Amino acid sequence: MTDARFERTRVIVFQAVSQVLVSEGLVGLTVDRIAAESGIARSTIYRNWPDLAALACEAFDELMHQESLDLGADPRTGLHDYLVDYARRLNDPTYTAMLVALIEGSWRDDAFAEVHRRAFSQTRSRAASIIRGAQKEGLIDPRLDIAQCVEDLVAPFLYRRVVTQNRITPRQVEELHSRLLERWTSAEK
Amino acid sequence: MTDARFERTRVIVFQAVSQVLVSEGLVGLTVDRIAAESGIARSTIYRNWPDLAALACEAFDELMHQESLDLGADPRTGLHDYLVDYARRLNDPTYTAMLVALIEGSWRDDAFAEVHRRAFSQTRSRAASIIRGAQKEGLIDPRLDIAQCVEDLVAPFLYRRVVTQNRITPRQVEELHSRLLERWTSAEK
Repeated sequence: MTDARFERTRVIVFQAVSQVLVSEGLVGLTVDRIAAESGIARSTIYRNWPDLAALACEAFDELMHQESLDLGADPRTGLHDYLVDYARRLNDPTYTAMLVALIEGSWRDDAFAEVHRRAFSQTRSRAASIIRGAQKEGLIDPRLDIAQCVEDLVAPFLYRRVVTQNRITPRQVEELHSRLLERWTSAEK
Repeated sequence: MTDARFERTRVIVFQAVSQVLVSEGLVGLTVDRIAAESGIARSTIYRNWPDLAALACEAFDELMHQESLDLGADPRTGLHDYLVDYARRLNDPTYTAMLVALIEGSWRDDAFAEVHRRAFSQTRSRAASIIRGAQKEGLIDPRLDIAQCVEDLVAPFLYRRVVTQNRITPRQVEELHSRLLERWTSAEK
């Protein structure tokens, strides 16, 4: 298969994977189902993605990193851009349905637990780099624990979107941004 | 069926429901599967629980409310007791696997979305009553928004347990308790 043909196949297979995850969860993710959904031959799927957990991981990575924006250079703007982008991604029903399917699968299946750990260590490392940057620039108290700050940053929207299933409004983005800055700078006093 | 016999049947059926939800999620929850797991006749299950979504809801309610403790009368202790109890429930793998199954199911299936909303409105109302009590007693700034306080109270452990899949340690309970009191009282100044 040429590179261009493989790339087309890959896009179609990944779309099929996300459709199956959204409608049926990880339980529905079989080679037969992906073949039926994508029109790609089962043998092609087997050959290129022998491991379905790895395929789900790749498809989710792709979704996580598409249109990943450049964050503002100023740490206050950077933090704001991060929250806006994070809310946008969580508000995308496909993104959140895939995320929830991964979380659920990883509670029942060790193969997906690894996928899930990888996806979340990426989220955490992106959030952590925003926080480290803001500490370096003096916006955030440098003594604050980074893991705790990451939790403060990502937990509220994840809870609101994944657990209570509400959309995140622009106003909630502004409020969380102010609240975090207030909390993280007042520790200095 | 006598009341005592029905009660025995109910306990066995609920155990079977939680086993199926933990091992297979909502996708696996069928009358055949519950009958096979419990040894109770399919006709008995159909007759008593014609709606599987309602059955899953009842089983989850039962799990949520068992050993529900009396909270300390002093609001500071009450908040602490609430966090200890909440961490204990989330650390129970059956509880959290059922919770995750419900969350996942409710993203894909309207019947379960209602179950989920009911379960979470109960969690929220219990947390909200703790917060209202603490506001009345003067421990928490009465101007603080209750919904926001509930989110501050429940989101960190839910994120840690459901999303990052770590156990909640006694130290994390103490830290969140101190952090919340500090945050909620400093708003007064």
